[in-house]
Amino acid sequence: MRMYDIIEKKRDGKALTDDEIKFFIDGYTKGEIPDYQASALCMAIFFRGMTEKETVTLTECMAESGDMLDLSRFGDLTADKHSTGGVGDKTTLIVAPIVACLGGIVTKMSGRGLGHTGGTVDKLESIPGYRTSLSEDEFISQVNNIGIAVIGQTGNLTPADKKLYALRDVTATVDSIPLITASIMSKKLAAGSKNIVLDVKYGSGAFMKTKEDAVILAENMVKIGKGCGRNVTAVLTNMEVPLGSCIGNSLEVKEAINVLRGRQDDELARVCVVLASEMLAQLKGIDAKDAEKLVKGVISDGTAFEKMKEWVSAQGADPQCLCDTELLPSASLIYPVLSDTDGYLTKTDAHLIGTAAMILGAGRASKEDSIDYSAGIVIEKKPGDLVKKGDVLCRLHTCSVSKIQQAEKTFRSALSFGENPPEKQELVYKIIR
Amino acid sequence: MRMYDIIEKKRDGKALTDDEIKFFIDGYTKGEIPDYQASALCMAIFFRGMTEKETVTLTECMAESGDMLDLSRFGDLTADKHSTGGVGDKTTLIVAPIVACLGGIVTKMSGRGLGHTGGTVDKLESIPGYRTSLSEDEFISQVNNIGIAVIGQTGNLTPADKKLYALRDVTATVDSIPLITASIMSKKLAAGSKNIVLDVKYGSGAFMKTKEDAVILAENMVKIGKGCGRNVTAVLTNMEVPLGSCIGNSLEVKEAINVLRGRQDDELARVCVVLASEMLAQLKGIDAKDAEKLVKGVISDGTAFEKMKEWVSAQGADPQCLCDTELLPSASLIYPVLSDTDGYLTKTDAHLIGTAAMILGAGRASKEDSIDYSAGIVIEKKPGDLVKKGDVLCRLHTCSVSKIQQAEKTFRSALSFGENPPEKQELVYKIIR
Repeated sequence: MRMYDIIEKKRDGKALTDDEIKFFIDGYTKGEIPDYQASALCMAIFFRGMTEKETVTLTECMAESGDMLDLSRFGDLTADKHSTGGVGDKTTLIVAPIVACLGGIVTKMSGRGLGHTGGTVDKLESIPGYRTSLSEDEFISQVNNIGIAVIGQTGNLTPADKKLYALRDVTATVDSIPLITASIMSKKLAAGSKNIVLDVKYGSGAFMKTKEDAVILAENMVKIGKGCGRNVTAVLTNMEVPLGSCIGNSLEVKEAINVLRGRQDDELARVCVVLASEMLAQLKGIDAKDAEKLVKGVISDGTAFEKMKEWVSAQGADPQCLCDTELLPSASLIYPVLSDTDGYLTKTDAHLIGTAAMILGAGRASKEDSIDYSAGIVIEKKPGDLVKKGDVLCRLHTCSVSKIQQAEKTFRSALSFGENPPEKQELVYKIIR
Repeated sequence: MRMYDIIEKKRDGKALTDDEIKFFIDGYTKGEIPDYQASALCMAIFFRGMTEKETVTLTECMAESGDMLDLSRFGDLTADKHSTGGVGDKTTLIVAPIVACLGGIVTKMSGRGLGHTGGTVDKLESIPGYRTSLSEDEFISQVNNIGIAVIGQTGNLTPADKKLYALRDVTATVDSIPLITASIMSKKLAAGSKNIVLDVKYGSGAFMKTKEDAVILAENMVKIGKGCGRNVTAVLTNMEVPLGSCIGNSLEVKEAINVLRGRQDDELARVCVVLASEMLAQLKGIDAKDAEKLVKGVISDGTAFEKMKEWVSAQGADPQCLCDTELLPSASLIYPVLSDTDGYLTKTDAHLIGTAAMILGAGRASKEDSIDYSAGIVIEKKPGDLVKKGDVLCRLHTCSVSKIQQAEKTFRSALSFGENPPEKQELVYKIIR
């Protein structure tokens, strides 16, 4: 078998066999197939696509390229959740303890933030003492004891995806539905859960800019995940505007606590209820409506918040931090951005607000950058609000006065005003089961 | 400027600017742009194509990536010819002295053979003493003295093309009209001639398998060559069957001599008259019909053959070899292949016959292989001939008895027989000026 023939075959629009896909992934992971052939194949896939069967095989080969977590000892109740990434997305912090206290076995490997989007691992590490790195024994034992663990990506998981994604990232071959699907779903397969809920975001702050593209990706991921033997549901959620009011690591932990304690009932809380309900419905084989009642119950009676304390405590943090959030990192400088105009706020662009938060120190421009856990933005006005000149639009949190000016400028560029309120946008566009 | 953005732009179907193309070619030649980005761009070009303006710029940038031969001292009469490659194609050996003895300044850099196709440099080197490598001073002085020189590719000519072609060859990105055009025409630009005739072959033995594809390539090359300031004509010629009767280096030199001495008046001779007439018409600004009379004149009066002797003598060979062809390398073994059937010969597949000649030692399977100058095939029957069982179909020439069996099998697989003679095929399909 020759890589040349595989490239030519895909270039000419033909479907690759299981053996050909395995030959490519194995050879590329081992370094026997050079980058220049892999990038030519990725570009051919960009143009020609892949069939469902090809994508399932690609996903499985990539999952099997490294370690695979074996969660079979936990039976069929293992649950994982994946978000395609956004601004202010702290849903894992809220949804994971809800599902765990209702009988789900929540095991999740999360990533770090890059660019305008945040990462769950960074958010958790803003809780003093929280360890995102556990040994396999610690991980298994914690899940056994309390039914939940959220850690960073560990060991030699999907090395094929790591290598291929880095190549796609520099050869303009990221935007391919089968390649994105295989990249995400191979990691989910390797992470071992039987049940997977995907939060597929669309809009300015998301990877998928339009609903239509998000639907195509979501449908494909559900199909491929099922083809690989997992239960998969996709929830399509709005990311035109940031999710919730807080952007930045410890600020988002505080907001998550508010939701779990039933003190905040906004878009963020509603999205979390939908995600948790879908996870529960999937796990227990019950109706989503019935699941929703259970979910709302464990929020209002405090069980979910107790589970969160149990969880962060098991991973090394002092649970007192969650009750007294003054113990979490906080910024030395809080700067209000005032409106210089009257009118309805019509748009708060998630991408630009995420970028402003990154400038303040909440995120990384490149992988090597360090993070200021206390930095970020608390939004005070949302689309639809009638704003008067001098009103506080948001508060910038940072430890570095030199960052304020550029962050303010970027934040202001994210806003639009008009004479009339904007059309109301749906929060959850579609659920694909 | 970033290579990533250039790949993405082409991937999305947009035209690249001159600066972007120059950035790519300069960076790639210097090794600053990695192979994996170049191959991704080539695959994107395969799918999206290039505009005429883009292709002109690509061609010029590639030509300027290395040395450019300056032939301006010879005025506007410099003439070059390029064949896209075929089986039994010895036209340069015949056409070059014809045009030179009629006032053209023929300067040509030729290549070596690979696979089923031969190369002019190999053919010339089968003449004992012929030097295909001249210093620039020797080259210029010889052209000054006798108006003709044919050498191998020399110096640092179009390094961008060398590097890019090697990459395209292993990433299934050769078959792209703008990339083929830029590859061929950049070499012609760097070789310096003002006037260029392209012999674009189509059919089994050619790079372009169909007339239609050959026309597209030819039209593009003429357009791009003119866009780069040269006079360009393309002659589309048939390569379904080998050109002439001889395949193999010294065998082809002998056949070329026969044509130049007016002793052979077949398809080969007719194609050579067309090519020489087009070159002359282009050079002198005269009508092709008038040029043809001049061409035929220098064949019949022996002037062209004298020019050939002068030429090979200037490049180190004993011109006596051309008069007494027994002095050229000859095979120790000549094996007749006999027909085992009666009927009309309907097809002699050029690709397979070229492969049979390669097996006998006339060509190289890979670049490192050595050549037996005496090896090859002399065809005795052509499509349309009525053949009887026991008739000699061809004679295999070789120095190695072990090669006969496989070569005979391959040769026989090239032939088809039928009850009726095949339709006559045109020799020259089209001329694009």
